[in-house]
Amino acid sequence: MDPASVVETTFHVRYAETDQMGVVHHSVYVIWFEEGRSAWLRARGTSYAEVEAGGHFFAVSEVHVRYLAPARYDRAVTVRTWPSRLGSRGFTLEYEVVDTESGQLLATGSTRHICLDREGRVTRIPEAWRKVLASVDRS
Amino acid sequence: MDPASVVETTFHVRYAETDQMGVVHHSVYVIWFEEGRSAWLRARGTSYAEVEAGGHFFAVSEVHVRYLAPARYDRAVTVRTWPSRLGSRGFTLEYEVVDTESGQLLATGSTRHICLDREGRVTRIPEAWRKVLASVDRS
Amino acid sequence: MDPASVVETTFHVRYAETDQMGVVHHSVYVIWFEEGRSAWLRARGTSYAEVEAGGHFFAVSEVHVRYLAPARYDRAVTVRTWPSRLGSRGFTLEYEVVDTESGQLLATGSTRHICLDREGRVTRIPEAWRKVLASVDRS
Amino acid sequence: MDPASVVETTFHVRYAETDQMGVVHHSVYVIWFEEGRSAWLRARGTSYAEVEAGGHFFAVSEVHVRYLAPARYDRAVTVRTWPSRLGSRGFTLEYEVVDTESGQLLATGSTRHICLDREGRVTRIPEAWRKVLASVDRS
Repeated sequence: MDPASVVETTFHVRYAETDQMGVVHHSVYVIWFEEGRSAWLRARGTSYAEVEAGGHFFAVSEVHVRYLAPARYDRAVTVRTWPSRLGSRGFTLEYEVVDTESGQLLATGSTRHICLDREGRVTRIPEAWRKVLASVDRS
Repeated sequence: MDPASVVETTFHVRYAETDQMGVVHHSVYVIWFEEGRSAWLRARGTSYAEVEAGGHFFAVSEVHVRYLAPARYDRAVTVRTWPSRLGSRGFTLEYEVVDTESGQLLATGSTRHICLDREGRVTRIPEAWRKVLASVDRS
Repeated sequence: MDPASVVETTFHVRYAETDQMGVVHHSVYVIWFEEGRSAWLRARGTSYAEVEAGGHFFAVSEVHVRYLAPARYDRAVTVRTWPSRLGSRGFTLEYEVVDTESGQLLATGSTRHICLDREGRVTRIPEAWRKVLASVDRS
Repeated sequence: MDPASVVETTFHVRYAETDQMGVVHHSVYVIWFEEGRSAWLRARGTSYAEVEAGGHFFAVSEVHVRYLAPARYDRAVTVRTWPSRLGSRGFTLEYEVVDTESGQLLATGSTRHICLDREGRVTRIPEAWRKVLASVDRS
């Protein structure tokens, strides 16, 4: 991982995200990863909304999560997101979720994406988006 | 309420639907009402998917829920759905959620809907759908 | 509404919160209201986690939402929350959701709460929490 | 996979489970897997609620999903669940999600679980539950 490619976003755990075990339900981390992706693109000065506006979708083809410690209601959590592999028709993103205050690592994971057109066919990632995905913030 | 217009659908409470209070999170009932609507249309031999395929949306303009008793993980719950008011551009549906086995009433509520076209403009409910919404099953 | 009692919290709309109509699903506003409540208590220097740690729950007994305009993916939305009625065993909170940038009002609503003890019995709101709920920030 | 160990459960895709891509959001499959687990235990004549009532939790330590084809609103989907590995303190379950009518495979995946006690410590799976997890229905 190139530290310059990591984007962090922080938010509070919502009550609705907990389950009767008293901790955040494991499905929620998949949504947090997605919010990490959204934040990664916002940090690059764009938005996934613009990908779709241009007629492309970065569909999720695979997701993997490892749960290390429970997240709890109202704690701040930080999602760290960075790209790890970039192909012509797809890419992979990596994630870490940490408790913001303590820095404790709560979960790690990854998502693989393929580029689809409006008809749902796999297609090449448009060059402009390849540049964004390959970019590293050295500012 | 005309008993002939009531449609029931039954399913198990999902673990993900609970929260750390140990009961179903209150936002979930809004999703259960929607599943009640879907079942109501399926019982009429159609699907809300066909409403959208025809270029219309029955957008929710208002929702109201009263919570009477908690729902618990893995219990069967039954949602009872029926229409209560039908106008030219909108309609209201009513709901009851009961514990299937005990019959205990868990929640009641209603949703108001307005008919939109693809551009998001309020429009008249197509006549074919008005007939479905006004129909009562006397079979 | 006393402006001094209003607390605002702002976040981005998550992709998972949209539905196939292309806008935020109506059930999500109930979760946003809850996040508004959490933020309201945080702004008072406390947390709903402390309510529960003390053996009490502010269970939702009723929710009402009116939808005025659709919310869209990746837009910033602001939830404004304020208390409107405070009884010995319950209270009501009011909400507005606005598009942060344009200020457009997207939804309004309210939630009623009753105070429960660990056994799920309705009980008086502890005096310390009544003071918090009655407080208005004049700082 | 021993066919006798596979349990199937079928339900309709909920509207709230779709996203603005027009298909089911990828996080939902994690919840469907969990519903597959619940159904697997119900088919064994018990319930995960009884695991927790006995003071144990089968916490998810890892989840993996591969998405093969999109699921769509109001279609019936079937989740097939079976155990694949059983250790002293944990076990793995495997899943397939298919479109009920066409039989098309929509997703595959797995979850790993560790047994926790009420204090959140990893502990041995109680013998009674080991027997359930090892059981195969030859009826």
